[in-house]
Amino acid sequence: MSALLLHEFAPSGNCYKIRLTAAHVGIPLERRQYDILKGETRTAEFLGEVNADGRIPVLQLGDDFLPESNAACVYLAHGTPLIPVDRFAHADMLRWMFWEQYSHEPNIATVRFWRRWVGEAALSELQRAMLPGKIAAGHAALALMDAHLGRTEFLVGSGLTLADIALYAYTHVAGEGGFDLQPYPNVRVWIARVAAQPGHVAIDA
Amino acid sequence: MSALLLHEFAPSGNCYKIRLTAAHVGIPLERRQYDILKGETRTAEFLGEVNADGRIPVLQLGDDFLPESNAACVYLAHGTPLIPVDRFAHADMLRWMFWEQYSHEPNIATVRFWRRWVGEAALSELQRAMLPGKIAAGHAALALMDAHLGRTEFLVGSGLTLADIALYAYTHVAGEGGFDLQPYPNVRVWIARVAAQPGHVAIDA
Repeated sequence: MSALLLHEFAPSGNCYKIRLTAAHVGIPLERRQYDILKGETRTAEFLGEVNADGRIPVLQLGDDFLPESNAACVYLAHGTPLIPVDRFAHADMLRWMFWEQYSHEPNIATVRFWRRWVGEAALSELQRAMLPGKIAAGHAALALMDAHLGRTEFLVGSGLTLADIALYAYTHVAGEGGFDLQPYPNVRVWIARVAAQPGHVAIDA
Repeated sequence: MSALLLHEFAPSGNCYKIRLTAAHVGIPLERRQYDILKGETRTAEFLGEVNADGRIPVLQLGDDFLPESNAACVYLAHGTPLIPVDRFAHADMLRWMFWEQYSHEPNIATVRFWRRWVGEAALSELQRAMLPGKIAAGHAALALMDAHLGRTEFLVGSGLTLADIALYAYTHVAGEGGFDLQPYPNVRVWIARVAAQPGHVAIDA
């Protein structure tokens, strides 16, 4: 396999997930940066050639384009221990990945983006009105993870899977959105455990 | 395989996806109903025994519980033609399923739920403020599907996959949320195509 190209905004946890998966499975990625604050993923060229949805990350494989971070992780980790073979464990891994996109990312990642990149002063009136609900939902997501991680070392089974990678991406930088992880000791231990795995790379690597 | 139990609210498209997948692969499901308008998935019993996240659907397999509709579909369709074997096609199927949960369901399903079940008069001030954005995002999702379905009969490859099932669930009832499908002719043809597949069951079956 050669010339996989990641279209990305490097500080995005969704983009980092793909780099972290690639590092674990030993697949090199070329990287092309887009400044989403300048609308560089909403240009006619990007919409026409990379992703009609106007979003990054997109993993490009020759002439094929694969949007959606968690789908790209599954592509990269095909046939590796990051994806359980057991039928239930495989579905349970996907359960955490769908939960990440529905209940974790729209809260924890969005609050981080609004506070750290957009800035609270620049939020729209609607965004400002939505902020308390997103903060509460982000804490609910962290509490759910913390309860689960009190019973198991990794999210699914006894080893690292894509479920851990998908959820590590924004959880370990939740503090950048103002989420204090102090009340979630099992999450903090799990963050250290994931970061200690062989092959790990940091979000700013 | 026996005694699979679907914890559900039958009119939910997320629950219907699982029944539709089960019908296609010939797996019988027992069904238990919860009235989400009465908070029946937020009781201590439900949170403790079925899903700490307080959401349906949950697919129960003996003592194991699998939340997240699309994960349950993958479990049921394991080893069937509904899941492509080819590495890219498999990831591309998941791409549409993650997109469904991130960009389609939170708009089209939420607007349907607010308008048809909650009722616009009973919406909170914040929900009312969010409604125009969700309607616009829902139309953007339909437009993206329509452009893609102008080039291909099914979302991935040349046959029905879980990507079609996941997106059919809320798309074919989008009108119940006030989304007129008239401007999306390829979506309308695709809806008829999915409904004509052998093994299809209706949402109210």
